[in-house]
Amino acid sequence: MISYFWLAPAGSVLALLVAYFFYKGMMRQSEGTPRMASIALAVRKGAMAYLRQQYKVVTVVFLFLTLVFSLLAYVLEVQNPWVPFAFITGGFFSGLSGYFGMRTATFASARTAEAARRSLDKGLRLAFRSGAVMGLVVVGLALLDISVWFLILNHFYPASAGPQSLIIITTTTLTFGMGASTQALFARVGGGIFTKAADVGADLVGKVEAGIPEDDPRNPATIADNVGDNVGDVAGMGADLYESYCGAVLATAALGATAFATTGFQMNAVIAPMVIAGLGTVLSVIGMFLVRTSEGADQKALLGSLWRGINSSSILIVILSAVMLHLLEIPNAWGIWGSVVTGLVTGIIIGKATEYYTSHAYQPTRKIAAQAQTGPATVIISGIGTGMISTAIPVAAVSAGTILSFLFASGFDFSNLSMGLYGIGIAAVGMLSTLGITLATDAYGPIADNAGGNAQMSGLDPEVRQRTDALDALGNTTAATGKGFAIGSAALTALALLASYIEEVRIHLDKIVSHIPSVLGGSISVSHASLRDLLNYFDITLMNPLVLVGAFIGSVMAFVFCGLSMQAVGRAAGRMVEEVRRQFKADPGIMAGTSEPDYARCVAISTKGAQHEMVLPSSLAILVPVGTGLLFGVGGVMGLLLGGTATGFVLAIFLANSGGAWDNAKKYIEEGSFGGKGSDAHKAAIIGDTVGDPFKDTSGPSLNILIKLMSMVSIVVSGVTVAFHLL
Amino acid sequence: MISYFWLAPAGSVLALLVAYFFYKGMMRQSEGTPRMASIALAVRKGAMAYLRQQYKVVTVVFLFLTLVFSLLAYVLEVQNPWVPFAFITGGFFSGLSGYFGMRTATFASARTAEAARRSLDKGLRLAFRSGAVMGLVVVGLALLDISVWFLILNHFYPASAGPQSLIIITTTTLTFGMGASTQALFARVGGGIFTKAADVGADLVGKVEAGIPEDDPRNPATIADNVGDNVGDVAGMGADLYESYCGAVLATAALGATAFATTGFQMNAVIAPMVIAGLGTVLSVIGMFLVRTSEGADQKALLGSLWRGINSSSILIVILSAVMLHLLEIPNAWGIWGSVVTGLVTGIIIGKATEYYTSHAYQPTRKIAAQAQTGPATVIISGIGTGMISTAIPVAAVSAGTILSFLFASGFDFSNLSMGLYGIGIAAVGMLSTLGITLATDAYGPIADNAGGNAQMSGLDPEVRQRTDALDALGNTTAATGKGFAIGSAALTALALLASYIEEVRIHLDKIVSHIPSVLGGSISVSHASLRDLLNYFDITLMNPLVLVGAFIGSVMAFVFCGLSMQAVGRAAGRMVEEVRRQFKADPGIMAGTSEPDYARCVAISTKGAQHEMVLPSSLAILVPVGTGLLFGVGGVMGLLLGGTATGFVLAIFLANSGGAWDNAKKYIEEGSFGGKGSDAHKAAIIGDTVGDPFKDTSGPSLNILIKLMSMVSIVVSGVTVAFHLL
Repeated sequence: MISYFWLAPAGSVLALLVAYFFYKGMMRQSEGTPRMASIALAVRKGAMAYLRQQYKVVTVVFLFLTLVFSLLAYVLEVQNPWVPFAFITGGFFSGLSGYFGMRTATFASARTAEAARRSLDKGLRLAFRSGAVMGLVVVGLALLDISVWFLILNHFYPASAGPQSLIIITTTTLTFGMGASTQALFARVGGGIFTKAADVGADLVGKVEAGIPEDDPRNPATIADNVGDNVGDVAGMGADLYESYCGAVLATAALGATAFATTGFQMNAVIAPMVIAGLGTVLSVIGMFLVRTSEGADQKALLGSLWRGINSSSILIVILSAVMLHLLEIPNAWGIWGSVVTGLVTGIIIGKATEYYTSHAYQPTRKIAAQAQTGPATVIISGIGTGMISTAIPVAAVSAGTILSFLFASGFDFSNLSMGLYGIGIAAVGMLSTLGITLATDAYGPIADNAGGNAQMSGLDPEVRQRTDALDALGNTTAATGKGFAIGSAALTALALLASYIEEVRIHLDKIVSHIPSVLGGSISVSHASLRDLLNYFDITLMNPLVLVGAFIGSVMAFVFCGLSMQAVGRAAGRMVEEVRRQFKADPGIMAGTSEPDYARCVAISTKGAQHEMVLPSSLAILVPVGTGLLFGVGGVMGLLLGGTATGFVLAIFLANSGGAWDNAKKYIEEGSFGGKGSDAHKAAIIGDTVGDPFKDTSGPSLNILIKLMSMVSIVVSGVTVAFHLL
Repeated sequence: MISYFWLAPAGSVLALLVAYFFYKGMMRQSEGTPRMASIALAVRKGAMAYLRQQYKVVTVVFLFLTLVFSLLAYVLEVQNPWVPFAFITGGFFSGLSGYFGMRTATFASARTAEAARRSLDKGLRLAFRSGAVMGLVVVGLALLDISVWFLILNHFYPASAGPQSLIIITTTTLTFGMGASTQALFARVGGGIFTKAADVGADLVGKVEAGIPEDDPRNPATIADNVGDNVGDVAGMGADLYESYCGAVLATAALGATAFATTGFQMNAVIAPMVIAGLGTVLSVIGMFLVRTSEGADQKALLGSLWRGINSSSILIVILSAVMLHLLEIPNAWGIWGSVVTGLVTGIIIGKATEYYTSHAYQPTRKIAAQAQTGPATVIISGIGTGMISTAIPVAAVSAGTILSFLFASGFDFSNLSMGLYGIGIAAVGMLSTLGITLATDAYGPIADNAGGNAQMSGLDPEVRQRTDALDALGNTTAATGKGFAIGSAALTALALLASYIEEVRIHLDKIVSHIPSVLGGSISVSHASLRDLLNYFDITLMNPLVLVGAFIGSVMAFVFCGLSMQAVGRAAGRMVEEVRRQFKADPGIMAGTSEPDYARCVAISTKGAQHEMVLPSSLAILVPVGTGLLFGVGGVMGLLLGGTATGFVLAIFLANSGGAWDNAKKYIEEGSFGGKGSDAHKAAIIGDTVGDPFKDTSGPSLNILIKLMSMVSIVVSGVTVAFHLL
């Protein structure tokens, strides 16, 4: 059975090789004029400087947490000895994914601009392949980490020793999911603050006060703005999706280990998510090679070509996962396959809904644009209203997906809890299985955006900017799908982690009491207790006040976290505004275009601001679950995770969609509606867009990580919670 | 024992008599100049016209729902025969509370302005006593309805027939809570849309485009704006708090009936919340008579006088409720008293936190004002950030309050679920016991505001406006306390209703199955099953996918409801803007001040807009719980209520505090900071204030009702849920 497992490392190696091949291909292209190369160099230097700084802070956090985990593992002995190491590798690889993705993006921007000078098609191919590097590195490194740890632990805890072995293996590997999430949260929050401080700062003084266009080289914050796109949208997104991907696979494996513990098919169920992920990676590579167009293709043909790649991968995974699940001889293989397909369909529905609510091809965004005619206040009210309403379809889709994937996997039996929960997990894996290619289409957006910035600052022909804008716009539709998958999988993974939490609690409970009352009467040993027995023992019902209070804390945590990150953007942007104003005032030659502004200083301000501001919200994400566990025990933590997931999920969609809709409402006006560029409506729409910046690029995406990190932290410290809780 | 019950109707009669006395006293005062009287008349006519229109729509809804309930009660027989009647009276009295409050307010505005012409002190006394009419009418009518129904049902289901009688009585009276909530939701949403459409519309064209001050008689929307303050802030608030007050008392009585069913003290526990409410009403009246100042008192003395009234009532209720609980011979009287005090303290903490985050005497609001210097975008971002962060303290307070009140009442025993939940309910009753006086200080704000509008439009001396502004500002601090009580009690009541839901489910389950498995082993009859048995039977654990999905739906419901009401304000305000622009264009004499604008048309537009727009969000509040029950059964509904409460509660605080902070940030600038009136910072702050209008006056306050209405609806249709659910 284990032989199929090798599909996971094989997929990893293939992904990393193809990524290397794409990277080398991109590097062979010309960077264009010396001016283009020098701007790209400045952006690259700034981005690398930022990343180095961020990794320093994160390293300190990791050292501290590793120390804590070592204490838990070796002194208090409430955690197994592999945990500190697994934690570190998760963080390391997550960081590495972001680093490689960003490095590629910063080398690709000038090259994409240069390619776009020749043709739209050449620009597309270069940008897409550069985006593909990120997609492949993320899935490649994730599968590598998963495979290596699985093999190592399998050596020390051989499956032949009984079903307990795989449970230990899978819960240990979950710890590296926590490492990945911790790193990802810092990357998303820090990167998000950097990019939006630079963006908001640059826009406020540049566009609004000085009246110069976006990416104008006279604006001192413009390099920082472009650096921000790389550290936030590329490095942040890479770490984020690495975390999502690992989280989904690891949570499902852990659920498989317990759900199938006594069936004789435990190993099959554990490796199934890994095998499906490996298979999806191979199919993503195939899909990528289908993204090609003939010379001189129009925009429609280009979009068709992107869709061909994504759709082919998706259709193939639907077919081949059915085959693979049968080869794996998993009980109820068709049912499990139904869960996989449910996951994929859920992701697609969320993606379509996202597109509908945020693209200016549809009514909602156009109506927001129309409200710009009565000023900024109505734009904001209408954008917030639309964003809130837009949460309905994604939540309905995830709700339906949750129930259907549960029912399929459990054989339509609600009492078959463990199997049903495994189904929810594998639905998330299905959704993310083709992450390689969906992430490629997502990551290519910021590359095209940066290429546009480079073209503008280098003073290239406006036609080049138009082409990079077209590339960027092209990616928006496909990116919506990618975002749908990320959001949907986060919710499903969080639910799966809720179940993993209870399983981890079981392991620690076993050390304290040997038997608990069974819901079927009499008593039962902890290791043989059903999930229902455990829930009953800890009184995890909706009437337990600790559960209720936990849910309140989870809800408020989502809001406070967003509030802190939003305030952080406001403060950091304020400092940027002051610096830009200072430079304009100190040297009038900047506005005249005769002297060059001090770009590096603005980069340094954003870097410092981000490092400073990211610590509090990120630390809360770790401290609150620990504190809740110590105060309110297992029930409180379960409530926290449910409240955090329910509120965080909805809040994340609201913020992302409001922000996206404002952005596109502004673009709709810029394309000539309601007075076009420079009109009062346009000014109002710019204010909407600026408000939306931290919504969609700082607070919103961080929430997806937050809800999973809180689950991961709870799982890792569950030993402490079980042993030492107050109430 | 029942003899103490008479304190409730006695409190009711006293409250209504004193209200009549205050009303007559107010009516004896002069309305001032003919111009003042005519403006007051126009506002009054508009307000009454609106209310008539709104009651028409609500009547249709009530007829329909009564028909449905009659069907449930008489045809399907899944509800008891009193339900349709109880439902109607709840709606009727809730509407009546709003009507009397508003009638008083519209008669009081010109009189307050006239009194303020003479002295600040005279203005305070008149405005406060007019606000007191509303406070007293609300508690008076609520206690009346509660007492009458209790007496009637007690006649038909005498307590001597066994503990089942009081359970039937209390669950039936909960239905009138649903009537009150339904009416209140329409009043809050409709009134909220009216007032903010008029306010936003008037501000956008008046202040921003035409550059005329607030309440300028040349603005055609100015009368509509003043009408809005009455229909939204007065009539809406009256119906809202009537609903909160009834909800808390009735939910606690219902919990008492089941928690104490077998103790021999059932009746004592059921009447305890009513008696405490009656006692609090008497103490509120005493407190009101303590609000008096010497002639020529300064602002500080006035504020001290308001606090003296509130504090005296609060301290007296702390002392006398201990006495009363002992007189009632309730088991664990000191514990229950601890819950009452916990509730009061929780309310005070929330009030203080609200004040800290929204008053410009403190840093958070001043920082928002400072952000106005970099434009509207940073004001908005910072206001949203502050609002989100401001949710932490209230939620922490409610969480602590929930656990403490549970522990006190249950004798520090988590397994004593029923008693503990009764404690949570009685904490809410404690918080609202002095509603008479806290509501008076809350309702007096809009009266002072309207008096200011009247003074402005009548062209009175600017000093009068300054005095009414001072009165308004004075009320803001005390109003924060009132709002804290309203928000905190909503959360606690919602948790209590969650428990009432399960008890109502028990009644219907009893008709379908006779025995269910007991968690202690063996089987047990439904009527003797413990709460834990019922929760176990319906699998109300956090791992049940139906519960999880229910929580998602609850969360999203809060957001979608807010989104819809916000969009409604946007649309209705847009129509108002068009009308005002049309009038300015059609008759240049309006701006010149030579011809009078068509005020009535603007009132009609807001009325029509509000009636039109309030139907969808309000209907959702009724349809979603019914649909969730039919699809996902009892588990789904419990999840829905928990998700809705957790998310709705936090969202409501965020919206209210962001809105309040923007409002006061603007006032802070108007008082001379950051450039003062007319500066760019001021313009940016006005935009923030406008965005905050629907936050704090439409969507935010409606959420408090929404979460309780969803619970009430679920309770009333639980028979249908138990009998006919899909999953």
